[in-house]
Amino acid sequence: MRLQDKTIAIIGLGLLGGSIAKTLRARAENMNIIGITRNKNLLTNEEALKVFTTVSTDIADLKEADIIIISTPIKSIISIIAKLKGIAKKGALITDVGSVKRTIINAATVLPKDVYFVGGHPMAGSHLSGFNHSSSDLFSGVTWAVCPSKNANANDEIVALVEFLGAEPTIISHDAHDKLVSASSHLPHVVAGVLADHILSGDNTGVELFIATGFLDTTRIAASDPVMWEEIINNNKDYIVKSLSGFQKRLNIWQKAIKENDVAQLTALLANAKQVREGVTKKAK
Amino acid sequence: MRLQDKTIAIIGLGLLGGSIAKTLRARAENMNIIGITRNKNLLTNEEALKVFTTVSTDIADLKEADIIIISTPIKSIISIIAKLKGIAKKGALITDVGSVKRTIINAATVLPKDVYFVGGHPMAGSHLSGFNHSSSDLFSGVTWAVCPSKNANANDEIVALVEFLGAEPTIISHDAHDKLVSASSHLPHVVAGVLADHILSGDNTGVELFIATGFLDTTRIAASDPVMWEEIINNNKDYIVKSLSGFQKRLNIWQKAIKENDVAQLTALLANAKQVREGVTKKAK
Repeated sequence: MRLQDKTIAIIGLGLLGGSIAKTLRARAENMNIIGITRNKNLLTNEEALKVFTTVSTDIADLKEADIIIISTPIKSIISIIAKLKGIAKKGALITDVGSVKRTIINAATVLPKDVYFVGGHPMAGSHLSGFNHSSSDLFSGVTWAVCPSKNANANDEIVALVEFLGAEPTIISHDAHDKLVSASSHLPHVVAGVLADHILSGDNTGVELFIATGFLDTTRIAASDPVMWEEIINNNKDYIVKSLSGFQKRLNIWQKAIKENDVAQLTALLANAKQVREGVTKKAK
Repeated sequence: MRLQDKTIAIIGLGLLGGSIAKTLRARAENMNIIGITRNKNLLTNEEALKVFTTVSTDIADLKEADIIIISTPIKSIISIIAKLKGIAKKGALITDVGSVKRTIINAATVLPKDVYFVGGHPMAGSHLSGFNHSSSDLFSGVTWAVCPSKNANANDEIVALVEFLGAEPTIISHDAHDKLVSASSHLPHVVAGVLADHILSGDNTGVELFIATGFLDTTRIAASDPVMWEEIINNNKDYIVKSLSGFQKRLNIWQKAIKENDVAQLTALLANAKQVREGVTKKAK
């Protein structure tokens, strides 16, 4: 069966779930797309009604779904997987968009053998959230991690789905994924939060007047949803703690160069930071 | 004499100097604007020739300047002030755009009594540099610190100049300025540099694929000019070291909450970071 002819269910219609639905609809006018949400406002939302074939608050409404995409925060992903155990049809394919993969893939071991779980994680997001901020071009060209199951067909189907959404699938083990995103995403999140917290909650009366783009960019993601991020951090705690400790060691090297007026060393550190930062191509959104 | 009728000299025609000149020209078609640069290419640059009445590499060409704006990195600001001692005319007003004020204002004590120095610092910038990136709207609505001299007329004239450029003058002592920008600008710079350095130079093979906007924004300013920033950091070392040490203390509190799985504390820290970050209005560019 062609992907376009399948029934796709999306659970959680926030920034990512909404963007998946809008992208699918933009590319497959007649696809059967079911949206499951706890947000009752979406049941009568004009835009949602255009995007989804059906919007429902009842997870039992996806018994016929061929592919189920769970797009909620991590704790909910885990509890939804448990619920799907008795709902998903034989041969159904389940994937998710969670930022941490080990705990989720572990939770998915409760599923029956003929229901397949393939972990997913698009490297796209925003400090803004909700269906209203979702868009049909969020995933264009973006890396989408796919943590494979033992079923090659299931993996191929999720890769095809990711490609259909315009993203670039990258097959990676859940452990390697969690390690790399602890560095590329979770550590920057914690550091941005500490920076905003330290500078704006500390003893810096008047500091607001002296804030420029540098500070605003560096701390932008500190404005993200705290509950979602608490769950991400706690689910990837071991790697984040390691990454934080490496960051602190590096910070000490910079601090020593600053304290000791070591012009050559400080210039070299700044020049290296510039070089590696400029070397990063903007793959993601 | 009206500001428009004065001769304004700008030394250093990079992002800030170029933007000052372009803004002045946009607002005062006939103003006598002299540009002094070490960059010989600008002597024949079409855009520069439109903006400046005269472009020269010789600092002696600003003997007639009423107001001299030094827009170079800090070390050069300090050496140029020493040179201006024998060049600036009686009654001339000198200001600068340096990110640290104490060392510069101290250097300005060599000037004759009838040449007035008023420190300045616009909270505008970019990781990009050079005349080509300068623009006539860089300063619109931006806080521009003015560190006053003992001469009230001189201070008033610089305030008028800053307002003419569309920025918002904020009178502040050089010491208070240096303390506040160590928090709002210099610390984020160091942290962004350490983050880029740690994540992209460390043992994270494959991390580039998993980089999203969060990392890109948080580390954007790590791509700034290393020499300019070494000078800023070393000229504001005492306050930056203090600010870094406060940041590290705060980081330890976050790290403890993460390590100990303290969900309530971590959520509270994340929620506070979100709240204070959202409370910052975007005053600056």
